[in-house]
Amino acid sequence: MKTISSRQNPWFKRLRDAVHDHAGEIVIEGPKQVADAIGGGWRAIAVIERGGEAEHPPENVSGTAHLSLSAELFDAVAETRATQGVMALFERPQFTLDMILRQRESIVVALDGVQDPGNVGSIVRLAAAFDAAGVALLPGCADAFGPKAIRASAAAILTVPVVNVTAHDLIAARIPLFAAQQTANAAAVPSKNAIIVFGSEGSGVSKEIAQSATSIAVPMSSRVESLNVATAAAILLWRSFEARSR
Amino acid sequence: MKTISSRQNPWFKRLRDAVHDHAGEIVIEGPKQVADAIGGGWRAIAVIERGGEAEHPPENVSGTAHLSLSAELFDAVAETRATQGVMALFERPQFTLDMILRQRESIVVALDGVQDPGNVGSIVRLAAAFDAAGVALLPGCADAFGPKAIRASAAAILTVPVVNVTAHDLIAARIPLFAAQQTANAAAVPSKNAIIVFGSEGSGVSKEIAQSATSIAVPMSSRVESLNVATAAAILLWRSFEARSR
Repeated sequence: MKTISSRQNPWFKRLRDAVHDHAGEIVIEGPKQVADAIGGGWRAIAVIERGGEAEHPPENVSGTAHLSLSAELFDAVAETRATQGVMALFERPQFTLDMILRQRESIVVALDGVQDPGNVGSIVRLAAAFDAAGVALLPGCADAFGPKAIRASAAAILTVPVVNVTAHDLIAARIPLFAAQQTANAAAVPSKNAIIVFGSEGSGVSKEIAQSATSIAVPMSSRVESLNVATAAAILLWRSFEARSR
Repeated sequence: MKTISSRQNPWFKRLRDAVHDHAGEIVIEGPKQVADAIGGGWRAIAVIERGGEAEHPPENVSGTAHLSLSAELFDAVAETRATQGVMALFERPQFTLDMILRQRESIVVALDGVQDPGNVGSIVRLAAAFDAAGVALLPGCADAFGPKAIRASAAAILTVPVVNVTAHDLIAARIPLFAAQQTANAAAVPSKNAIIVFGSEGSGVSKEIAQSATSIAVPMSSRVESLNVATAAAILLWRSFEARSR
């Protein structure tokens, strides 16, 4: 395998674009994450090693290119420290809100203005852990397919349908809408046929959503004012899962 | 108020040491966090502004020095982007395991080898949200009083007793010991008179703890192998709080 060392090489440019823009293609970093994605049925367009250094080079998979980038080029592309010398290029999964809403036996997770990619990725992982139908991202959220969100999702991003939507899309879906809020008058956490919206920790969900949604909450001590959004989501999505599993 | 601009100034050195070593003194960054700490009864040794720029300079509190550091020195000290031009120096709170264990009506949270300061801080915040008696840090954990952990705790660090302990200390306490594990044979989550230990996501709790502890777990889908430790702690500490509130 020849090691690519020129910044003019089309593979280098394609990988860099996937890491930065994650529009049509995305990059998964780290040998375990890449193996999990391939094991989960995703076909890698290319598997890339750092300077041919990988201790356990990924096996050859038909239809997948195997490349080696020089250490300098590899490090210029990689955005997290989790690569351990391996990354892979995949097509960005494409889903629609309709595909997610069809699964009425579970709930849909929606995020509203959650800017931190670590929180978005953590909540994608929670959606997988607690069998949500999918994740809908309202305006103002970090892209779930950016490197930091993918890393926080621990590669769950490839098992959870994620779509970008507007508040109007969610309201027009005519499925019961719930919003996580700090309130004393909270309803029971829904187990199915519902959309649960989480806003940012500072400003909560948008007015449009709040007006159409029933409030649910995490009961807690008065010693803290609020919880981190991924923490609140962990508790409420677990409660939904638990109610569904009964 | 004179602005300090020399690296030889004793206040500059003292602040830098508090941020780096957080041994006898600690630094809280951000106007809201500083105000919350002072509101919570903590006496600030000094409140520090960045080049006299603060839009809302903290009020004068008797016994507290008010300083202004030049932008260059302030930025050299601050370790997070959350300062908004304000930080304050406090004495590091000192607690003992005995002080925490005395509160038998709640549970004690223990962390074993949790290296990420963000996770340690998040769990300190959860301990406040769900009224745990305190947090005990076993060897291998990030210091709860480092700047990243303090930031992740959203200043809950000043309302939750945190102590450093050994596995032997916890076992010798003769209080029922529980460990969060991925297991099918999990016991009920205890509501009081118990210590709950969380290990790192990769390696779990240490052997010594595992041998003495009863396993508790978060039931979840087989789609993910594990949860982030702060996420698992959110769910289990909420369940303990909820059982205690009944």
